[in-house]
Order: sequence, then C-alpha cells, then structure tokens
Amino acid sequence: MNASGLNVGVVGGTGYSGGELCRLLLAHPAVDKILPTSRGDQPFERNHRNLLGCGLEFVTPEQLLADVGDLDVVFFCTPTGEAMSVVERYLDHGVRVIDLSADFRFGDPDTYRAAHGLEHTAPHLLTEAVYGISELNRERVRSARLVANPGCYVITAVLGLAPLLTSGMASLDAPLHVSAINGTTGASSTPKRDVMHPHVFGSILPYNMEGHRHAPELEDVLGALTERRLTVDLNTAHGDFARGIYVQASVPLLSSARHKVDQSVLSDLYEQAYGAGHDGEHFVLLNDFPKSGKLNAKDYDVYPSVAAVRGSNFCHLGVDYDESRGIAKVIAVTDNLVKGAAGSAIQNMNTMFELPEIEGLRHYGA
Amino acid sequence: MNASGLNVGVVGGTGYSGGELCRLLLAHPAVDKILPTSRGDQPFERNHRNLLGCGLEFVTPEQLLADVGDLDVVFFCTPTGEAMSVVERYLDHGVRVIDLSADFRFGDPDTYRAAHGLEHTAPHLLTEAVYGISELNRERVRSARLVANPGCYVITAVLGLAPLLTSGMASLDAPLHVSAINGTTGASSTPKRDVMHPHVFGSILPYNMEGHRHAPELEDVLGALTERRLTVDLNTAHGDFARGIYVQASVPLLSSARHKVDQSVLSDLYEQAYGAGHDGEHFVLLNDFPKSGKLNAKDYDVYPSVAAVRGSNFCHLGVDYDESRGIAKVIAVTDNLVKGAAGSAIQNMNTMFELPEIEGLRHYGA
Amino acid sequence: MNASGLNVGVVGGTGYSGGELCRLLLAHPAVDKILPTSRGDQPFERNHRNLLGCGLEFVTPEQLLADVGDLDVVFFCTPTGEAMSVVERYLDHGVRVIDLSADFRFGDPDTYRAAHGLEHTAPHLLTEAVYGISELNRERVRSARLVANPGCYVITAVLGLAPLLTSGMASLDAPLHVSAINGTTGASSTPKRDVMHPHVFGSILPYNMEGHRHAPELEDVLGALTERRLTVDLNTAHGDFARGIYVQASVPLLSSARHKVDQSVLSDLYEQAYGAGHDGEHFVLLNDFPKSGKLNAKDYDVYPSVAAVRGSNFCHLGVDYDESRGIAKVIAVTDNLVKGAAGSAIQNMNTMFELPEIEGLRHYGA
Amino acid sequence: MNASGLNVGVVGGTGYSGGELCRLLLAHPAVDKILPTSRGDQPFERNHRNLLGCGLEFVTPEQLLADVGDLDVVFFCTPTGEAMSVVERYLDHGVRVIDLSADFRFGDPDTYRAAHGLEHTAPHLLTEAVYGISELNRERVRSARLVANPGCYVITAVLGLAPLLTSGMASLDAPLHVSAINGTTGASSTPKRDVMHPHVFGSILPYNMEGHRHAPELEDVLGALTERRLTVDLNTAHGDFARGIYVQASVPLLSSARHKVDQSVLSDLYEQAYGAGHDGEHFVLLNDFPKSGKLNAKDYDVYPSVAAVRGSNFCHLGVDYDESRGIAKVIAVTDNLVKGAAGSAIQNMNTMFELPEIEGLRHYGA
Repeated sequence: MNASGLNVGVVGGTGYSGGELCRLLLAHPAVDKILPTSRGDQPFERNHRNLLGCGLEFVTPEQLLADVGDLDVVFFCTPTGEAMSVVERYLDHGVRVIDLSADFRFGDPDTYRAAHGLEHTAPHLLTEAVYGISELNRERVRSARLVANPGCYVITAVLGLAPLLTSGMASLDAPLHVSAINGTTGASSTPKRDVMHPHVFGSILPYNMEGHRHAPELEDVLGALTERRLTVDLNTAHGDFARGIYVQASVPLLSSARHKVDQSVLSDLYEQAYGAGHDGEHFVLLNDFPKSGKLNAKDYDVYPSVAAVRGSNFCHLGVDYDESRGIAKVIAVTDNLVKGAAGSAIQNMNTMFELPEIEGLRHYGA
Repeated sequence: MNASGLNVGVVGGTGYSGGELCRLLLAHPAVDKILPTSRGDQPFERNHRNLLGCGLEFVTPEQLLADVGDLDVVFFCTPTGEAMSVVERYLDHGVRVIDLSADFRFGDPDTYRAAHGLEHTAPHLLTEAVYGISELNRERVRSARLVANPGCYVITAVLGLAPLLTSGMASLDAPLHVSAINGTTGASSTPKRDVMHPHVFGSILPYNMEGHRHAPELEDVLGALTERRLTVDLNTAHGDFARGIYVQASVPLLSSARHKVDQSVLSDLYEQAYGAGHDGEHFVLLNDFPKSGKLNAKDYDVYPSVAAVRGSNFCHLGVDYDESRGIAKVIAVTDNLVKGAAGSAIQNMNTMFELPEIEGLRHYGA
Repeated sequence: MNASGLNVGVVGGTGYSGGELCRLLLAHPAVDKILPTSRGDQPFERNHRNLLGCGLEFVTPEQLLADVGDLDVVFFCTPTGEAMSVVERYLDHGVRVIDLSADFRFGDPDTYRAAHGLEHTAPHLLTEAVYGISELNRERVRSARLVANPGCYVITAVLGLAPLLTSGMASLDAPLHVSAINGTTGASSTPKRDVMHPHVFGSILPYNMEGHRHAPELEDVLGALTERRLTVDLNTAHGDFARGIYVQASVPLLSSARHKVDQSVLSDLYEQAYGAGHDGEHFVLLNDFPKSGKLNAKDYDVYPSVAAVRGSNFCHLGVDYDESRGIAKVIAVTDNLVKGAAGSAIQNMNTMFELPEIEGLRHYGA
Repeated sequence: MNASGLNVGVVGGTGYSGGELCRLLLAHPAVDKILPTSRGDQPFERNHRNLLGCGLEFVTPEQLLADVGDLDVVFFCTPTGEAMSVVERYLDHGVRVIDLSADFRFGDPDTYRAAHGLEHTAPHLLTEAVYGISELNRERVRSARLVANPGCYVITAVLGLAPLLTSGMASLDAPLHVSAINGTTGASSTPKRDVMHPHVFGSILPYNMEGHRHAPELEDVLGALTERRLTVDLNTAHGDFARGIYVQASVPLLSSARHKVDQSVLSDLYEQAYGAGHDGEHFVLLNDFPKSGKLNAKDYDVYPSVAAVRGSNFCHLGVDYDESRGIAKVIAVTDNLVKGAAGSAIQNMNTMFELPEIEGLRHYGA
C-alpha cells in the first residue's frame, strides 16, 4: 500500500459491476487512486452518470498494465474468459487480483469448461485462487494473491443455506430447489431488445431454465461445505427492478429432525451461525420479527425485503418452517451489485490489506 | 336468461376481483344488467376509477337478494367464509352461483377447516359444487348450479403442471416445488403498511412461507388428476407489479424417462394436451420459440412473459429440461385478476349458459 | 367493405403501435383479415408475444401492395418520412389510408420541413388529408380518403385544453405550459442504451427540451381551434411505465375571468363540452370527484389516473383552479398506444366505414 | 460536541425522513449517539427494516427531553405544527435544532397561517430561524441555533432556478412554471388507499393542483433571491418510484436576452454559479454532455437522471434552450429524502459544527 492509500485498477470499467466498484471505492477512506479501463470513447462520467463530478477518467487496459508498478490491487470486471489470460501479468508484479468474473471460481478446469464452454488458459492458477466469501473463509482470503469473487446468485444462496445444510437436519439426497429473481443490472449492459424497458416493466424474465451456469458453482461450494455431492435446481429470472437478488430455497428435513423443528429452532441455528448484532458477522443479518400468529395472516415484514438492502453490502436472511410438509424455507436477499459483486470484492480487498472489513461499506440500504 | 341478456349480481363489488368482473362484464355482449354490491358509501366509479363513465351503481347485498327473481347468475367476490352462508338463498331461486372465494373449493369440510380455520356452514353443498377449470372439466361446469372458481395460484399452476404430471414421466414421490410471484392486486385492497408503494417498489414480498392456504387446494386438484397423494411445496410472494402471476415449477423425472426427454419432447406433450392454435384450448398457449443454441445465451423470449397476458384471459406456458439434473421445468403465467379470477369466472359463466366460451374474453394482453 | 368484413393492411407491423393496432383489430367484430408488414425475419407472434396464438403472419410491404385490390383500409405505422411516398398507390386503388406517422399532420409543407427536417414528397395530398380527432371533426373524418392520425401528446393535450381555450376565459398571450410524461412504448422499439431497463427503473427521462417535434403540431391544432396564433411550451419525458401519457397544463385566466371561476365552473365547462355519460363523447370523461375540503389534504383520486386508462381508448380529464394565482389546471391522461395511436386510428376507421364509433374499443382500462 | 462525537436526537423517528436521518447518521464518522423518538410500540429495526442490525432503539419524546443535557443537536421530523411548541425547550439548553418540518420556514406568521392553516405558537423564533440551504447561505447556517430545513420541492427547484433567475436574462413577470414529480416516500407513511401499490404502479398521482403548500415557500425564497415578488405555478405529483424528485421549470427570457442565448451560454452561467468539480459546490452538478446534433434525436443522457442521485445528497442540473420560443429550460433532480430532507439537514449540521460539509455524505447515488 502506498503511504497515502491504495492504488486500484478496475479492468472492465464500463459495465454495471465496474461502475459499482468505482462508486464504492470513491467513498472508501483507504483508497487513493482509481483507474478504470475502457476500450470505448465515452467519457467515464457519461458512462456512469451517478458518478457525475467524481473526476475519474478511463484509461485503456494497456495503459493500466504499463503502470503496473504503481498499483496495489486490480479488480477484473470483464466478461468470463478474459481475466484468465491477463491476471498473471499483474500477479508477477506483486499486484493482488480480485476477479469478479467466473474465470477462477472452479478448482477444476473441466468444470469450468463444462459450465462456460471455454478452455481454461491458466489452469495452474486455479488451485492458488481463493474463493472469496469472507464470511466462510476469511483467513484464506487474507493471504491470497488471487481471489475469485463469487457469482451473485451463489453468494446469496450460500450465505442463506450454509447454516442449514451443515446442521445435520437437512435431507441432501433430493435436488435442492432454489428460485432466484435478480435485478436487470444482472443482465449485460449491452442493449438488447428483451431487456428494453417496455419488455421488463411489470414482468418477470426467466432465463436459462435448462441449467444456469451458476448452478455448478453453487453445487461446488455447497458440496465443499457439506463434504458431499449435492444437486442444486437453480431457477433464475430477472424482475422489474434494477438492483437486488431474491433467493428462496426449500430444504426438506430428515425424518429424524422434522418433529423437533419449528421456526424458532431454525432462527436459533442462524443466530448461532452468524452471531447477533455487533458480535457477529456484520453484513449477514437475520430478519426474524415475530408473526402475529393468526392463520393465513400476511405478515410481510417477518421476511427479508430486497429493497431494504439496496445499495448496501448487507445480506438479510429469513427462515421459516412448513411443518405439515417437513420443509425448511430460507429467504436470502442482497444487492446483486454490492454483496453480489463489488461490495464483497471490496470486503475481500479490506481483508487482504488488513483494513477493517467494513471500511467503505458502512452505508445501510436505501 | 332474459330475452335481452343475462342479469348478473356481483356480491362484494369493492375489491380488486369484483371490480375486474364488472370491467369484463361491461364489455360482454350477452350481459344485460350488472348489479355490484357494497356496504360502503363510496360511489362505484370512484371506487373503480378505470370504470369511469360506465354508469354502474352499488346496491346493498340485501337489495340484491330482494331482487333475486330478476337474476340469472351471481358471482361472489367476498372474503372466505362469507359466501357459504348465503349462496343457498340464490340457488333456491334458480340463480346459478359462481363463487370466487375458497368456500366451495374443497369436497371435504375438514380440509376446508384446516386450510382456512373456519367451520363450514354448508357442507351439504360441497359435493354438489363443481370446481371450475373449464379446460379440465368443461362438461361438469356446463350443468353446475354452483361453481367454485379456483384460486389464482392454483389455476395457473394446474394448467402448467397437468400435462406433465399425468404423462407418466414425472417422479411424484418428492415434494413438487412451485415458486410463484403474484401482483399486488392479489393482496387485500384494505390499506396496509407493507403494501404501501414505497415498501413494494423494487422489492419482492414473500409471505406465508409456513404453508400458503392455496397449497392444500393445489394438492387436492393435482391429486385428483394423478389419482395419488402429492405434496406441493408452494412458495408465494408479491412482486412489484399490479397484475399477473408467474409460476415456476420443477418436476424431477423418473429415471426411466430422463434420457428420452428433451425440450422438444416436453413441447410436444403440451401441444398434444392443449392443442395448437384454433383447434386447441383457446386460452392456454405454449410459448416455445426456438433457442439460439449458444451456451449461456440469455434467450429471454423462449419463455412466457407475465406482461404479455396482462388484462387478458390467456395462460402462457413454457417448458424446458435440465438434462444434467433430470428436472423438467414449467413456467406458467396468467393475469391473476383475469384467468386467475374474474376471467375464468366468466369463462365458467359462458359454459354454464351455453354461450361461446370466449365471449367477452377476446381481448389479448396489453 | 367485403361482405364478410374489412380487410386491413398494417404497414410497419413490428413496432409498438403496429402491434397495438393488430391487438385491437383482432378483437374487432367487423374486421375480417389483418395483414401486417415486416422486412425482418422474426415471426409475428415472437415479435408481439402478447398476441401468441393469434395466427397472424407478416407479409412484405411489396406483397401487401400487390394485393391492394383486396384491401379496404391501410394503416401506416412507419417512421416519419416513409408513408408520404407510398400512400397514393393505395388511394389510387380506392383503399382508404390512416397514417399514424407525422407525414400528413400539417397542411403546410414548410411546417413539416421545419418540424421533421424532411422535404415533403406529396404536398398535394396535405390539403386533402383530414386530421383525425373524431371528437373534434367527426364529419370530415367520415368522408376522408386519407386521415392523419394525431401525435400521442397532441391528442391528449388537445382533448384536455380545447374546452378551456375556446371558452373566452383563457389568456392566450403568454406561452401555454404543458408538461407531459409518456410511457416507454412512446420511444422507438430499436434497442438503445438509455431505454434499457436499469436506466429507466425509478427514473424519468426528459428529452428534446429544446423543442419537441409535437409542439408545432399542437400549436397548429390549438391555433386552428382558437383562430389565433399560440405558443406552446411542451415539455416531454418518459416515465417508468410502458403505456400511458400524463399531460398537465397550466392556463392563466384573463383578469376578467379570474374572480368568476372556481373548480365547479371549470367542471361544468368540460361537462358541457363533452357531455356526461352516454349522451356525450364516449371516450372523453371528466374525473371530478369532490375533494374532502381540508387544507393540504392529498385527495389523490379527485384527479385522473394514468393507470386507469391502460389498454383502453379512454381519455380521462381533470380540472382545478389555483385561485390565488389565477391559473386553471388541466390534467389529461390516455394510453399512448390506444387513444394516443392505434385506438384513435380504429375510432377513425369506424367513423370512415359507418361502423359504431366504439366498435372494437369497448374495453375499459386494466 | 462531546469528546467522542455528536449526540443527536431525532424527534419523529418513525416516518420516512426520520428513518433516512438515522440511516445517514449511522454512517457519519462524527456522530456518537443517535436517539430517535416514537410514541408507538414497534421496535426501531422493524419500523426501518433497511437498518436491521444497527442497534438503535426508540425513546419517547419525553425521555429525549429529560436527557436534553447530553444532546448536541436535535432534528425534528414531525408533522407541520408540532416542532414550534417544543424547540425552545431544546434551544434553552444550548441544543441546536434543525427542523425538517415547515414550522420555521417563513419569516412571517401570516404566510405560515395561509400556507398551513395553523396559528404559529412561537412567532418570536421566526426571525431567528435560518433557512438552511448551505449553497445559498452557508455563513448564516454556521452560527444558527435554529435551522429551518427547506421543503424537498423547494430546495430542488431553488438550486435549479437561482442562477438563471438572478442572471438578468429571465422574464419574471409571468408566473414561473414548475412541474415536479416526487417519489412516494414524499407522501405520508400512514397507510392510505390511493398510495397502496396497485394504485401507484405504472401511474402518476397529481395532487394539490389548487396550489401546493410549497408554492408560497418557493415564492418566498426566490423572491428574496431576486428581490422582487414572483408567482410560481408549482405542479406536483407522485410517480411510480420510492425516492427522488424530478423538477422541470420553464423560464421565458427577456426579449433583450433571447437572441444572445443558446444552450452553452446557459451551461456557462451554471458552471460559474456552482463551480466545476472540486472547486465548486460539491453537491450541485451540471449534467451537460453534448448532444448528437441530429434533429429530433432523443439524446436522453444530455439531461439529469433521477435514478442517478438515488440515496445520495447530490443535485444534478440540466439546462437547455428552446430558441424558437425564447424559453429556457431547467431540470433539477435530487433524492427527496436526502438532498430534499435528511441529507441537507446533515449538511447543515456539518456546517453548524464546523465539520467538513460533506462528512457522512460522500456516497454517490445507487
């Protein structure tokens, strides 16, 4: 780190996650210089109009590489398949790398090829790369040179499912059903007919029902946590909102557990896993306000709200139990651009540079 | 039927489904007179401002009953628990009844009590009442005195699942996973903090995760279709749109079927079940446009769109297959107030009065 | 007209207004055949997914012209500048033409050039073309061969302003201020970055503040009505909704009128202009529910609602009076694709073919 | 100020602006303790679910007053009419007061009575109270005991209009036309039928067209700036978004100025007024990207976007010129809860306590 703070590169600075990284880095007290890259000719502030007045300017990827000696850390916000051929040039100069694409999320190049249809060009880095969910493997992130930032659906689902799947109560034989609705910033920023406003307004856009590319990533991470092979039925769609991920998962419980469980048992399990308030995980919070107790009452606020985390790095969780069917329910919400991408990337950066983990991420949702 | 057309009562005319019934009846060529009831003092057109200029006026429920002799058919749009104590007075005068509440949806008063927490006061009518999904039991609806109009989630899910569940390919042992997002007109019209606009905007409001009251109704209908007991894991939420239901269901296939199936096999199954175009079910349509074939391509328009059916009586279906996990996917969308309530009620009315089934329901979604 | 009904061509069938015309024509009882044109290769039902199952297919513009003898009427939904070079070939064969573009809206080719930057190629047709607002000039529309369908902002503003501007109470010297918010279907359907969903969600997109091309059209029509030259300050934007136009206009009153006016005087003026209920203009309705009378009370429903006319051909009007400043307020709302385009085009067609004016347009907003 | 930071009271902590103050104060590095008040029994974090995990708890207004000695500053987020009877008790103990209600916005109790229908109970404080727009009167705010925080419409419109109205180019004789669309958090948080989600979705809700209570406030402030009496025709509505104000104003120019002006002249005027980038007003920024220059081109991004300031304290401005009509156009956008309320209140607090003016307000819009 420079005396005055971190110098940060953002490779792929024109898209939604690159812009969000810059937004958060601009308010980060330990960051000195931000260098986003672009190959286009639109000025930075016109490309990201929410950052009007910030003073940032694009450089080309080549210019960034030429000044590699001045950098402390580089984030990759490039389409899958691009980072793998470049990161080593940064690592070789002692620059730490946080990759928001999928290039380093799998330990195995075969899984990568199967999920993304590409041959991996830097397989020797796959074992070195650390999968960056601070809440799960903070220590490994701390010393990593190369962090693979998780997919937005994956981090949301994993934070929601980890305590239950590792509790010994869940039946893991049948496919795990996960339904997720993502904001439209989760789609590419390239203009496309079906993501034009009139097509999304008041609608829901399911996609990749034949198997979303985040499903094997989710199976991989949950499989490592539970030390067994899992099947995840991940169903994805975009909703009529710009930011946010809503994940709902249904987990059948083992017969042995069914009659010992109720909502409060699940609630306790999650409180123990993530801690309560200031003693626990700062960004993972359980929304477990008590129900009114009336049959069929629609107590909406006993579950998490996507809108409540908008713009913030928080993940709100909710748990419930369908007693008559023996199915535990988990709801997890994040902002797909923050906890789902740029925020957790900065959280990883904070961890890697021994900064307070919540530095630059203190704002609540708006 | 009167020489000049049908005289129609709408008990409970102030809520969303009562208003929608009036909207559709006003454009129905075979309807002569519409009598909505209200106990409040707000004029009809101020209560339903989209019907400005229509000339309808509220009567009290007592006034409607007093004129029972002039009526051909009465719709109940009352909260669950109200219709059961009144419908017989209409039936006794030869007026046919279509109940949009849950009062007559179960054959068994015990199931009703379990789902709705109420003792049924007219159990003798439960066996007579016909469950009104015209696509499934048109003949029974034709001669019914009393039709139980299905729940909005249920009709959407049933139209989506029936062909697959009765195909012999589906594994019905594990719970059937159904995720559904409903518009906010699916919530009560009574002002409530959590349904105020700022709480819904850009958000998703899950509710009743402990078991939605439509789940036993869905299990009942699907159980009758498949002639076995099924468990349905129904997950419900309201989205940031006023009208529409989005249902996504995941159906694991039997091992014996897994390798024989692909998207086109499922597509053919649905074409056979509902027919194609004018020879088939008019209101149930398969959206099965071909994919681009590229890995990870987000071909949004190969699946149904909630917005495409807005204001119409159509149900659009989509099917896909996750080959690597052996799970068939179904997407079904309707307008919760039309096919999910008032539209299917009018479709039932048309059937009961030997009118063309699509009369008054010809408009496409907008 | 053919014995069996009208044969209708829709030149430019891929955009929003072409699709909406087809949607409404499909439910029109007097229409036999609909022939939309496209130069692309996407099938009709994939292009307009709300019309799934309708059976329409695109023809090329050349195919349509080749079959000109079978047609009764042709609608042009083409970009400004295209219809003017083609309509005569239809007119010459006795086919009546309704042009939804701006090509025939001005009597004077110089005004057309100034507003649209194009030289008019059929100036001899400009005097023959009838400006098609049925409520204002029904008789001329009846006998027209060529109807110029008004711009969406213009018809909404004109219906809202006509009674007041011709009442003798309005001061017409200063610029007339009109602020209008249009749905995003009012933008082109060509994919564009700034109309992608994340850019519109929760936002408002002003455009053409240097002078919208509809301003001279509005000045032209209002000038003809008031028989004097007017200046209109038209301010336009797109809002976060797909359909609908919200127009708010402020009209300073003459000193002589200021103290004689209140809300009810204005309300009476509009009731007289458009008539009440069934005796008046069917599609133009005054929303004038009484206020609560409390200071600063937000009586939202005393004004029109854009959502209330969605999908319908209605125009809802509201009037109020700022007594302390002597300014009359007008609010006018329509669905930009219906009354603002396809619906009024069909209303014109009905008038031209001696059909009931509301045929095919009976549905209320949803 | 306490050694450890400011102790802050928030009277009226249950509504939208009270919640937003707490949200921003929680991330403010110079704030030690936050004490929001409520008379209800809902816990703080359930009332403001975006602040889950923050640890704040409600106290009663009486408890807050009892501990007046510990406080540095108190914000009032109470309905108009409540602060005026209480603030003196805080002032007497040396606590500085920032009132977000309208109680101290007028110098004259008669204007207050006319606008709000209430007799002022502390008229002696009206002359002492400083109207708190830091960009206009920073020095007076610095030493104020009592700051009247401006109305959300007013601060947005004033920042947008001040440079032009004081330039000598504007014609100030005719009413100044201002159209404004506010988010629904600008409505009361009390449940109300017309602000329920289905009524707002895809709609616009105009209100108080007879004269919004912010109009006299705006006339007062602009009158003071221009040193003459002005009439403002303020038109207000809520749009289908939770946060944000969109203000569009039309200012006819003096004949003498009309031919000397173009967009770049106006742009320069605003650059001079607010400065560019880091040398100027941090929170007031001009969005003046160049147009493509094509006739009728919809260059949306040359104007400010409401979404771009969401959650931030920024005000984005745009200017344009309708040359043919001699009318200058101003567009100003803010987040109604931040720059329009809680953010500018904190900006005032920073100024009053000699803190960096942007402390706690560094985040860009999301």
